[in-house]
Amino acid sequence: MNFPSKLIEDAVNEISRLPGIGKKTALRLALHLLKQPEAVSDNLTEAISKLRKGTSYCHLCHNISDQKICSVCQGARRDRSLICVVEDIPDVLAIENTSQYNGLYHVLGGVISPIQGIGPEELKIESLLHRIDHPHAGDPVSEVILALPSTMEGDTTAFYITRKLKEKGTKVSTIARGIPIGGELEYTDEVTLGRSILTRVNYSAD
Amino acid sequence: MNFPSKLIEDAVNEISRLPGIGKKTALRLALHLLKQPEAVSDNLTEAISKLRKGTSYCHLCHNISDQKICSVCQGARRDRSLICVVEDIPDVLAIENTSQYNGLYHVLGGVISPIQGIGPEELKIESLLHRIDHPHAGDPVSEVILALPSTMEGDTTAFYITRKLKEKGTKVSTIARGIPIGGELEYTDEVTLGRSILTRVNYSAD
Repeated sequence: MNFPSKLIEDAVNEISRLPGIGKKTALRLALHLLKQPEAVSDNLTEAISKLRKGTSYCHLCHNISDQKICSVCQGARRDRSLICVVEDIPDVLAIENTSQYNGLYHVLGGVISPIQGIGPEELKIESLLHRIDHPHAGDPVSEVILALPSTMEGDTTAFYITRKLKEKGTKVSTIARGIPIGGELEYTDEVTLGRSILTRVNYSAD
Repeated sequence: MNFPSKLIEDAVNEISRLPGIGKKTALRLALHLLKQPEAVSDNLTEAISKLRKGTSYCHLCHNISDQKICSVCQGARRDRSLICVVEDIPDVLAIENTSQYNGLYHVLGGVISPIQGIGPEELKIESLLHRIDHPHAGDPVSEVILALPSTMEGDTTAFYITRKLKEKGTKVSTIARGIPIGGELEYTDEVTLGRSILTRVNYSAD
């Protein structure tokens, strides 16, 4: 593409470095910013700079935090005996938004992927094991819930963490896989449907 | 959505103000920037700031320009007797990239849209008429080519400009509408197909 100005070329190049944004979208965004009052692009650049410079991570669970220890880990009403292990920060937000979980989290920062050169030592697994051995406020961890993606990498990570935790005698569980609520049986892929039959839940009378 | 930090909440809010970017995409982009070296977000914010503060528009054609008069209007090899009227800046880039046009441009900055309250005086139509009456380098304009969107608003604008230019005796043409090259007849909408028959081009023997 030939740009009429170096300034717009630079802006388009930088914006299109963002994931999922190509040159055409970047140009559209740049021209949009040009049409808006100057405050709009000032606020945008300020928010991004502040985010990049001001954000730190919780020392315990590695979630984004303004403080040394995040609001979840500090929460007075949180069940400190539960730790939910997730791949990355958006997963914490997703689980928090269900309002169905009241325990703590542990953000691995990825999953084991030999192809991408990510081994267990690149992830926050050692730090998880440390949390089990040395609970922060003295409350022991009774269960670790794995909420990892159901991909080969996610399963490998789950297997690795489970083995490490079993050595310590910690109870490990994983979130349920199955037909999504509202999902139709006939349109569900066979792996999910097959697994949902194997891991069926009893309507027990107890 | 509950955010673990005010900084990320602010960044997500500002990024999601951009057109076509929702909260989830904004969060993904913000987390992406956090994972990149600081230089990436610095370059991004700097390019946006510079763009917003440094960009000016060509005094003649209203295209983006670093200088008072843009490189197209200044171009020594440009045919100054042709002016192509477009809705907005990306249209100039699109036509330039075809390498099929060697004249000048005129960017209206929109099209007439009574519903959105955009009348002829909100657009650079007066400035176009001025260019016809007072050619910049003294070369008279022999033809104005309308390359406007084929929507009701685009057609209204084309009609308005045509009437104004006819009063001055300037030749007006419009870009051809028809089946795109490589397009299949049976999948073309009936309006385009109908128009392409009405405005058929003679394979003349001359």
